[in-house]
Amino acid sequence: MAEASRISEARRDAVFARWVIFSPARSRRPTDLKSHGPANPSPGPDDGAPKPSCPFCLGRESECAPEIFRVPAPDESLPWRIRVIENLFPALRREAAPPAPEDEEPVGAGECAVRGFGFHDVVIETPHHEVRLWDLDAEGVRDVLLAYARRVQQLAEHPAVKYVQVFKNQGASAGASMAHSHSQMLGTPFVPPSVTSRLNCMKEVFERSGKCSLCAVVSKDILVSETHNFSAFVPFAASYPFEIWIVPRQHSSYFHETDQDKVLDLAGLLKSMLQKLCKQLNDPPFNYMIHSAPFGLSSSCLPYTHWFLQIVPQLSVIGGFEMGSGCHINPVFPEDAAKILREIDSSV
Amino acid sequence: MAEASRISEARRDAVFARWVIFSPARSRRPTDLKSHGPANPSPGPDDGAPKPSCPFCLGRESECAPEIFRVPAPDESLPWRIRVIENLFPALRREAAPPAPEDEEPVGAGECAVRGFGFHDVVIETPHHEVRLWDLDAEGVRDVLLAYARRVQQLAEHPAVKYVQVFKNQGASAGASMAHSHSQMLGTPFVPPSVTSRLNCMKEVFERSGKCSLCAVVSKDILVSETHNFSAFVPFAASYPFEIWIVPRQHSSYFHETDQDKVLDLAGLLKSMLQKLCKQLNDPPFNYMIHSAPFGLSSSCLPYTHWFLQIVPQLSVIGGFEMGSGCHINPVFPEDAAKILREIDSSV
Repeated sequence: MAEASRISEARRDAVFARWVIFSPARSRRPTDLKSHGPANPSPGPDDGAPKPSCPFCLGRESECAPEIFRVPAPDESLPWRIRVIENLFPALRREAAPPAPEDEEPVGAGECAVRGFGFHDVVIETPHHEVRLWDLDAEGVRDVLLAYARRVQQLAEHPAVKYVQVFKNQGASAGASMAHSHSQMLGTPFVPPSVTSRLNCMKEVFERSGKCSLCAVVSKDILVSETHNFSAFVPFAASYPFEIWIVPRQHSSYFHETDQDKVLDLAGLLKSMLQKLCKQLNDPPFNYMIHSAPFGLSSSCLPYTHWFLQIVPQLSVIGGFEMGSGCHINPVFPEDAAKILREIDSSV
Repeated sequence: MAEASRISEARRDAVFARWVIFSPARSRRPTDLKSHGPANPSPGPDDGAPKPSCPFCLGRESECAPEIFRVPAPDESLPWRIRVIENLFPALRREAAPPAPEDEEPVGAGECAVRGFGFHDVVIETPHHEVRLWDLDAEGVRDVLLAYARRVQQLAEHPAVKYVQVFKNQGASAGASMAHSHSQMLGTPFVPPSVTSRLNCMKEVFERSGKCSLCAVVSKDILVSETHNFSAFVPFAASYPFEIWIVPRQHSSYFHETDQDKVLDLAGLLKSMLQKLCKQLNDPPFNYMIHSAPFGLSSSCLPYTHWFLQIVPQLSVIGGFEMGSGCHINPVFPEDAAKILREIDSSV
């Protein structure tokens, strides 16, 4: 898959300041252990019928946690097209008391504990059990993204919510516990660690160069596709093989402030990238994450915060080196992955 | 497993400054997808015979990459007990030219690329295919740890090596490609990202409190076991269920400077912790990592750098929330995990 004749290289990116080792030779290792391959349940033909055990299917709404809002089907043939609901097994609880500022004082030498306040919501992307996100038309994907944006906007208005992590787990080995196509978001009472380090890195780059790290990306060799408003590329220091970032071409700090026309443009590009990954990598489990800015950021931080969507197909196992050092080993150079992805026809 | 009646809590630790969400309710989720369970190959009875396909077995030395050194068997009944060899498929290459300081200058806005120079070595812990690390006696485990220390010391003398990450992957889903018990180490020409953030966090705690984060740990409720020289506990903000840290009780920056008597003490504790995890969690895949200080640290940094060994059993899948935010969701409170681990008899 990779050009194994290339020699190893270590790269550090300008968004997370993470070192990544590119090592084509690693993909040629023999193994006497069976590793986890891609393991998505292969969808059968969709007869539109709800699956007996799936609470996300049409007609099973009463088995779910409370609904927050629904998006109606355009032709009213169905009672809904998208539902945003509470997670029945939330990691953080909306009914807990929000932490007071003094709760964040360290206990002991720097440790800190707060009550598990927060919001954990689910976006059911389709009423049909077997339909995958990229099976929807661009307007359907747009409506899913608009549902994210609308819910993020609602959570942004809660004074104790500092960040919302929007994400999708596709496939069991990518962390999904339900096969029915859905995304999730967690509104947290703290700024998560990766967000803090991303902002610190982008701030340092901005102070040194006067540029936003993502506005400054020269995407020639790593570009997969671009539209009027967005670029999709394999990042220069991709931690994972065939990782893709979709980045607004115009500087913008907050995902949820993107206007409707641009969201349609994003939806088309996202659909196309998921189709390419599905075709090239045999329907792999994957995750995508929206990296936006924390709420209530001072205006001086806006010039260096630039939101983007990161897609990570699950192709490799994280071992002790990655866990311990935070440095990933990627057997596929970004330029090679981008070339392969560029050349796949995403249409069917 | 966890006390599901407990409510959620978010904790930030004083070593990595990472937020972790403790959510016992998450362990009660139903699923309609099969997730990867622990999947270690169950070892058969060891007849001492080499496996036909395993180059790490006795008598197959010529099929491996060059040997760096070997540790003889105490009674000379075997040609070796431990071998430290080069990795046949190294992520970094010792024959590459080390990067010059000016190579680390950012290209573009903060991005950086250097040649893939470095060392990637393997420690074969036993000549016997079916013997696991914790099947060795304490002296055997000590000799493995002393082999790590000796090789780290050799790499520390190379002017271009800034850090050595020592780690062990046990089981395919923990990243091992070979079943024969082994560990690895990577000597890198840069300080890896997690090491930088650990040092930054511990420095900040030290500047604020005058204390080393790890010297200040009050381990009463989270203690699993302790010896004269080491404590084993489940960290206050463990990212993973049943994660264990083994920490020297006396402040010490560098693992490889530990003296032989203390290493024997550490070996007994490590063996006991691996036995407990194997018993309690049904022989799970796991990783362990030694977190030490980068080489050539100025003496002003030594008061807040404290090495430790982190053991992480592979029980949960990393999903988009964790990948995106860097914040883990752990269904088992550290106090509960520690209580369970304390109560298991590790002997037999």
